[in-house]
Amino acid sequence: MAYRKIINDPVYGFITVDDELVYTIISHPYYQRLRRIHQMAMAQLVYPGAVHTRLHHSLGAYHLMCNAIKELKGKGFSISAEEEQAAKIAILLHDIGHGPYSHALEQVLIKNVSHEKISLMLMEKMNAELSGKLEMAIDIFKDDYPKKFLHQLVSGQLDVDRMDYLIRDSFFTGVSEGVIGYDRIIKMLTVHDGELMIEEKGIYSIEKFLVSRRLMYWQVYLHKTVLCAEKMLVNIIKRARIVNAQALSGAFNNFLHKEFKEEEIENHLDDFCMVDDYDVLSAIKSWALHPDKILSVLCKGIINRRLLKIKYSGTIIDDNVVKEKTELAIQYFKISNDEARYLVFTGETGNKTYSNKDEHINILFKDGTIKDISEVDNALINQTLFGTVKKFYICFPNMELL
Amino acid sequence: MAYRKIINDPVYGFITVDDELVYTIISHPYYQRLRRIHQMAMAQLVYPGAVHTRLHHSLGAYHLMCNAIKELKGKGFSISAEEEQAAKIAILLHDIGHGPYSHALEQVLIKNVSHEKISLMLMEKMNAELSGKLEMAIDIFKDDYPKKFLHQLVSGQLDVDRMDYLIRDSFFTGVSEGVIGYDRIIKMLTVHDGELMIEEKGIYSIEKFLVSRRLMYWQVYLHKTVLCAEKMLVNIIKRARIVNAQALSGAFNNFLHKEFKEEEIENHLDDFCMVDDYDVLSAIKSWALHPDKILSVLCKGIINRRLLKIKYSGTIIDDNVVKEKTELAIQYFKISNDEARYLVFTGETGNKTYSNKDEHINILFKDGTIKDISEVDNALINQTLFGTVKKFYICFPNMELL
Amino acid sequence: MAYRKIINDPVYGFITVDDELVYTIISHPYYQRLRRIHQMAMAQLVYPGAVHTRLHHSLGAYHLMCNAIKELKGKGFSISAEEEQAAKIAILLHDIGHGPYSHALEQVLIKNVSHEKISLMLMEKMNAELSGKLEMAIDIFKDDYPKKFLHQLVSGQLDVDRMDYLIRDSFFTGVSEGVIGYDRIIKMLTVHDGELMIEEKGIYSIEKFLVSRRLMYWQVYLHKTVLCAEKMLVNIIKRARIVNAQALSGAFNNFLHKEFKEEEIENHLDDFCMVDDYDVLSAIKSWALHPDKILSVLCKGIINRRLLKIKYSGTIIDDNVVKEKTELAIQYFKISNDEARYLVFTGETGNKTYSNKDEHINILFKDGTIKDISEVDNALINQTLFGTVKKFYICFPNMELL
Amino acid sequence: MAYRKIINDPVYGFITVDDELVYTIISHPYYQRLRRIHQMAMAQLVYPGAVHTRLHHSLGAYHLMCNAIKELKGKGFSISAEEEQAAKIAILLHDIGHGPYSHALEQVLIKNVSHEKISLMLMEKMNAELSGKLEMAIDIFKDDYPKKFLHQLVSGQLDVDRMDYLIRDSFFTGVSEGVIGYDRIIKMLTVHDGELMIEEKGIYSIEKFLVSRRLMYWQVYLHKTVLCAEKMLVNIIKRARIVNAQALSGAFNNFLHKEFKEEEIENHLDDFCMVDDYDVLSAIKSWALHPDKILSVLCKGIINRRLLKIKYSGTIIDDNVVKEKTELAIQYFKISNDEARYLVFTGETGNKTYSNKDEHINILFKDGTIKDISEVDNALINQTLFGTVKKFYICFPNMELL
Repeated sequence: MAYRKIINDPVYGFITVDDELVYTIISHPYYQRLRRIHQMAMAQLVYPGAVHTRLHHSLGAYHLMCNAIKELKGKGFSISAEEEQAAKIAILLHDIGHGPYSHALEQVLIKNVSHEKISLMLMEKMNAELSGKLEMAIDIFKDDYPKKFLHQLVSGQLDVDRMDYLIRDSFFTGVSEGVIGYDRIIKMLTVHDGELMIEEKGIYSIEKFLVSRRLMYWQVYLHKTVLCAEKMLVNIIKRARIVNAQALSGAFNNFLHKEFKEEEIENHLDDFCMVDDYDVLSAIKSWALHPDKILSVLCKGIINRRLLKIKYSGTIIDDNVVKEKTELAIQYFKISNDEARYLVFTGETGNKTYSNKDEHINILFKDGTIKDISEVDNALINQTLFGTVKKFYICFPNMELL
Repeated sequence: MAYRKIINDPVYGFITVDDELVYTIISHPYYQRLRRIHQMAMAQLVYPGAVHTRLHHSLGAYHLMCNAIKELKGKGFSISAEEEQAAKIAILLHDIGHGPYSHALEQVLIKNVSHEKISLMLMEKMNAELSGKLEMAIDIFKDDYPKKFLHQLVSGQLDVDRMDYLIRDSFFTGVSEGVIGYDRIIKMLTVHDGELMIEEKGIYSIEKFLVSRRLMYWQVYLHKTVLCAEKMLVNIIKRARIVNAQALSGAFNNFLHKEFKEEEIENHLDDFCMVDDYDVLSAIKSWALHPDKILSVLCKGIINRRLLKIKYSGTIIDDNVVKEKTELAIQYFKISNDEARYLVFTGETGNKTYSNKDEHINILFKDGTIKDISEVDNALINQTLFGTVKKFYICFPNMELL
Repeated sequence: MAYRKIINDPVYGFITVDDELVYTIISHPYYQRLRRIHQMAMAQLVYPGAVHTRLHHSLGAYHLMCNAIKELKGKGFSISAEEEQAAKIAILLHDIGHGPYSHALEQVLIKNVSHEKISLMLMEKMNAELSGKLEMAIDIFKDDYPKKFLHQLVSGQLDVDRMDYLIRDSFFTGVSEGVIGYDRIIKMLTVHDGELMIEEKGIYSIEKFLVSRRLMYWQVYLHKTVLCAEKMLVNIIKRARIVNAQALSGAFNNFLHKEFKEEEIENHLDDFCMVDDYDVLSAIKSWALHPDKILSVLCKGIINRRLLKIKYSGTIIDDNVVKEKTELAIQYFKISNDEARYLVFTGETGNKTYSNKDEHINILFKDGTIKDISEVDNALINQTLFGTVKKFYICFPNMELL
Repeated sequence: MAYRKIINDPVYGFITVDDELVYTIISHPYYQRLRRIHQMAMAQLVYPGAVHTRLHHSLGAYHLMCNAIKELKGKGFSISAEEEQAAKIAILLHDIGHGPYSHALEQVLIKNVSHEKISLMLMEKMNAELSGKLEMAIDIFKDDYPKKFLHQLVSGQLDVDRMDYLIRDSFFTGVSEGVIGYDRIIKMLTVHDGELMIEEKGIYSIEKFLVSRRLMYWQVYLHKTVLCAEKMLVNIIKRARIVNAQALSGAFNNFLHKEFKEEEIENHLDDFCMVDDYDVLSAIKSWALHPDKILSVLCKGIINRRLLKIKYSGTIIDDNVVKEKTELAIQYFKISNDEARYLVFTGETGNKTYSNKDEHINILFKDGTIKDISEVDNALINQTLFGTVKKFYICFPNMELL
C-alpha cells in the first residue's frame, strides 16, 4: 500500500501527506517547534479563538499547494513529480525561520535579519542533513527556479501562504467576513509565459479576496487592542534589555541580551530553535514581579490583560496630548520622563489594499490579453486605493484600571 | 405555556414564531402560495441548488427582522410591542405580490404593475379579513409610519430583505463568496434622528456587503446563462400570445391572454394567487410539442436545458453580427425575419455597485458626525463606482445543439 | 486543454465533470427531467428548505463516487479508467427511473414496477442511443460485474447514494444532526476479496452514520406531518381515479387512468419521462375546485397546507377511535362511510436501524479478521436494534382548520 | 445605552456580555489565567487545531447558559434576574480551579484535591473580594440552591459545560462527527418538579448526543497517541521529582517538589494561579537537556513529538510482552529495571456510553410520564452499553525513532 497519512484540519477537513520526504520534514524538530509559535501573536487577547500555530498554518498552506498543483496539472500545465514535491516542501518550510511571537517581535529580538533569511538558513541546514534533497525546494523559495509560477505560489500576490492565513485566521478568530473563496481562486489559477495568472471568470473572486484582506487588516491584524498589546510586547523586550532583566530560559537570554550579526546567526541556529512563545511568556510572567516598575507594569498588563489604552487617529498625534499623558504617567508611577516613554508612546501603522507598483495580479482574458486587476473594466480596485492608508496611534496608561 | 413554533432553516438554524397573528399570516393561502414561486427563477439551470422558494426567503427576512429589532431594543431604542409585530408582518408580506418566476416575468405577465403594488393590494385584502390588524404593518410598508427606520428595515439600502436574499441565494447556489456578515451588520445597526444607520465599527462590514452584492450580481443574478434562460422565458410568453397558445391552467390563461389595467387587478386577486411557477412550467412542457416551431424550440430549450447561446460584450452588439445570426436562423428553421427575432435578439443589462444618489448608507461616527459610506476616509466604495455598469448581449441558436 | 466543467454545489463546494460521456449523459433530456422531481416529496411542507431535486442528488452521489474511487485507487486497488467511468455513470443514472414525487407515489402511479426497474429500462434505451457505451455501467448497476465492490458503491449498505442523500437532505432541511462524516467514511473504505469494507479505525464513524440515518428517518422522512401529507397525496391519486378526474397534462392522465403492465412500460418510456412533480401539483391545484368534495378537500389541504391531523402510536390504532373520527367526518362532510376512508385512515410505518440479515457492513481489522459492525467489541449497534420499529398512525380531518 | 460587549467566537458567532459583574469576573486575573491552560492538553499533538484554551471553553459554556435560560424563560419557567446572573457566573467559573494541562495532570501535580475543590476555593476568594456578590453562584455550583435545575445546567448529564466542550473540541480538532445539535437540545430542555428534563421530541437528539460523546472519547480524548503523550507527561513529573529536577519557574517548583495537603492549598492559591501550561512546557524544554537520561528522553519526546509507541488491547497486557520491551529498554538505554518503568509501562483506560446508575437523562413525555433515555421504546442506548468499556495499553520506546 502507498504511503499515506491523514491529518484532521477544521479548516479543510483532512490534509493528506502521501510523500515520505514531506513526512520526514514535518517530523523534524525544527518543524515541530512551530507548534510553539502562535500564528497571530497577541490577537488572542481580542479574539480568544486565535490561538492556532505556525505549524498549523504551514500545513494548511501545504494543503492548498497540493490543490493548486493538481488544478494546474489538470489544466494541462507540465509540472514534474520532482517539481511538485519541491514546491510542497518550499511552502511547508516558508515560515520555519519565525521567532517567538513572529511578526510582533520580528526585527526586535534579532535585529536586521528577516524571518525569510533565517528560513533559508534553516532550509540549507536541513538540506545538508538530508543529503541535498531540498535543493530544488530552496531554488523555488529563492526564486531561482526557471518555472517562475512555482515561486509565485510560494510567495506572491496570490500565493497559498496568503490564502491560507486569511482563511485560517478568519476561521479561528470567528471573523467570518474575512473568509475568501480559496477553492474558487485555485480553480481560476492559470499560467501564461511561466507566470501565475487568474482566468477572466475569476475577477470578482479576486476583488473579494482583496477586500477580505483589507477587512482582516483593519479589523483583526491592526485592531487597536491587538496592536497595543504587541507594542507593549516590544517595549517589554526593550525595557528588559535596559534593566538587564534575566529570562528563565538560557537560550532566550542569549537572543535577548546579545546582539548577533547576520553572519553570526548561522552558528546559533540550534539555539534559535530553542526559543519560542513559551520562553517569552514565561519570562513576562516572572517579570510581572520584577523590581523595575516599568517592566512589571507592562508585564502584568499582558498577563492579566490590563492593557494600556490606545487611541487611533487619522492624523499625527498632537504633541500636547502626548505631553499631558506623559505628565500623568510620571506623577502616577513616580518615574522619569525617559522611563515614561515605555508607557506613553505614539506610532503609525498602515496597510494598502492593492498597488500595481509591486507585484501584479494579472488577469488572463479569453482573447489572450492580460490586464492588471486594477485595470479591468469597471475595476473595484482602482487607483484611489493604491496609496498606503496610515493610522496614527497613542498608547498610555488606563488610569481606571490602575 | 407561551405560543411557540420553531422552523428548521439551513441558513439560520431555527426560526422561531412566537406570535399568533404572525402564525395566522404564515398559514394563509396567499402566503403558502409562495412555496410555488422559486426565489431565483431560472438560476437553477446553472446552480442546481438554487431551488429555494419565496416563502423560505420571506421567513428568513422575518427572522432577521426579529434579530434587528432585538438588537436595537438592546441598544435602548424604543420600539413598542405593536410596532415590533407590525414590522415583522410587513417584512413577511413584502414579496406576497410576486407572480410566477417573479423578477424574470415581472412586467411581462402583468404589464405596468409592479409586484410591490400587488403586494400592497394583497395586504389590504388580508387586512380586511383580519379586521384591521395589519394597519400598522401596511403603514410601515408604505413608509407612512413616523418611525422611518422601521420602513428602512423593510425596504432600503440595508433592509433585511436584501440581507436575507444575499445570504440565502449564496447559500443555496453554493457561491460561498456571496456570504455577508449579516449578524455583524445587524449588531452594528443604530438609529439617529429616526433613520437607520451603521456604527463606525461597521464600515468594513458594509464595504464587504456591497462587494458581495456586486459579486452576486455578476456571478449569479446576471450570469449569462441565467440571463439567457430568463429572456427565453420572456420570449415564450410573448410568442404564446402571438400564436394564441393555450396554457393548461385557466387562471394562467387569463393573465396570459387578457391585459388587465392596474385598477382591474384588484378584482382578480384570487385568480392571480392561483398562478405560480407550476402553471408556467407545465405550459412550457406542453408547448414543447406545439406546432409553432418558434414556441416549441424555445420551450424544449428550457425543458431540456438546451439553451440559446449568449455572448456578453462591453459594447453594443454589432448589427452585422445580428444580421448574420438571424440569417442562419431563418435558413435553418425556415422562418420569417420577424419570427427569427424570438431566437436571435440583443439587449443590455446592468448593475451599479453603489450610488449616493439614491438612498444612502449612513455611517454614524462616535463623535456624532454622519457620513455616507462613499465619503468616509479611504473609502473602498468611491465615485468611480457610482455609474451603472452595462453589459450588452446577443442570444442566438446554438447550432451544435440542434 | 482537458475537458472540464465545474458545477457549484452548496454541499461539496464544486463538482467537477471531466469526462465527455458523463457530460453527454448529464445533458440528456432524461437526466434533465430529474430537475422536476423533488428529492424529498412533501417534506418541504415541514422543512421549507427541502426543495432540492433528484438531479442535484444524483450529481452529488456522482461526486462522492469520484472521491471513493480516487481513495481506493490511492490505496492501491486496481480500477481501470473504463471501470471508473462506468461506475460514475451507474451512479449518475441510479435514480433516473423515479416518477413524480418519487417514493411517495412509487407503486401507486405505476403499480408493481419499482423505480429501479424503470431506471434499468431507461439506461438500456440510452445505451442503444449511445451505441453501447453504457454496457459496463449497466452491468455494475445490475451487479453482473465481477468487481462486486463497484456495485456495492452504487447500491449497498455503504453506497454513495445513501451517503449523499443523508448529507444533502440534512443540509437542505437544516437538520444538522443528520450530518454524517462522509469524507471520513470514504477515507476508511477498503476492499477485501472483492467486497467493500471499512477499516477498523472507521468503526465509530459507521456507528455515527447508522445513528444519523436512524435520526433522519424518525425526525424527517417519517416525520408525522410529512407522512400525513404523503398519504394525502396517495389518496388524491386514488380518489382521482375513482371519480375519473382529469389531469391537465395528457401524459400524466395516461399513467393516472390506465394501468400498465411491466412489459408495457417499455413502450411508454418517453411518455413516462414527460411526467413529473409539476404535472401532479398542477392537477392538484385544479382539483382543489373539483366538484368531488373528497378530492377537493384533500387537494386544498396540500395546496394551502391545511393538512389532516395525524397521531402516531406505538400500538395499533383502536377501532373505536377510527369509528369516532369516521362518524365525525361523515357528518361534517355529508359523505358515505366508504368516502370517509379517504379522510380518516390508519396505517403503519417503520424503520430498522440495522440488521445483519440483509447486506452487512463489514469491518476489516488490522489483523485480517472481518466482523459485522454489530459484532465488534462493545458494539453500539447490537441485536436489540435489529427488529423493525413500527409506528401506527391515524389521519383524520382537523376540525379546527375547517 | 446599556452595558454591552461582544466577543467573536468561531463556534457561536458572537458571545454577548451585557452584565457588568460578569465582565468584572472575566477581567479578573484568575479568569484571564485560563488563557494559558489548553483545553485539550496533549491532543494537539494529534489534532493540530486543538489548541483552544479553558478561557474560551468557559466563555462558550457561559453563552450556552444564556441561551438555555432564555429558552426556559420563554417556556414560562420562572427564573429571576438574580438567579440568571448567578447561573451564568457559576458556569463561567466552573473550571477556574484547573491546573496546568488540566485533566492530564490532575491529581498528579496536586494530589488528592480535585479541580472542583480548587474552583470552589477560588470562587470563595473572589466572593470575598467582591463583597459577597457570588454567594448565589456558589450555592448553585455546590448544588445548595433550591432550584436544582440551575445546578444541573452547570453540572449534570446535560449541562452546558459538556455541550460546549463537545462542540468546541470537535470544532477545533476538525472531528466534525463529534458535532452535536446543541441548539436543538437547548430548545428541547424543560423543567419538571425542579429537575432538568428533555421533551419527548428531543429523544433522537439526545441519542445522537450520547453517540457523539462516545465517538469523541474513543477517537479523540482517548486516542492512543494522545493518551501516550499524556502518560509521558505524568512520568515526566514523577521522574522530575525523583531526580529533583528544577523547573525554571519558582511557583511551579513549589507544586512540583512540595506536597500540599488539601487544607494547605488555600494559603497558596495565588501561587497556584501563577502556574500554567507555559511553566510546564518551558520546564520540559529545559529538561530535554537534563543529565538524567530517562527525563531527557521523555522530555525530548514531547518537545519534538517523538513519542513512545503505544499499543491498545482489549485484554490485559501479557507479562511477557512487558518483560521483553523492558529488557530492550534496559539494554538500549543502559538503565536499571526500575528506571525502565518510566519508558515501558502499562495501564488501562475506559469510558462508558451511558449508565442509568449515575445521574439520569430524563425524558418528559407529552402525557406527563417520565422515562430514562435508556428506557424509552426501542432505545438505542440500552443496557448492553451500561458497563465501562476498558482498553488496556502498553507504552514502550519506538526503536525506529531512536
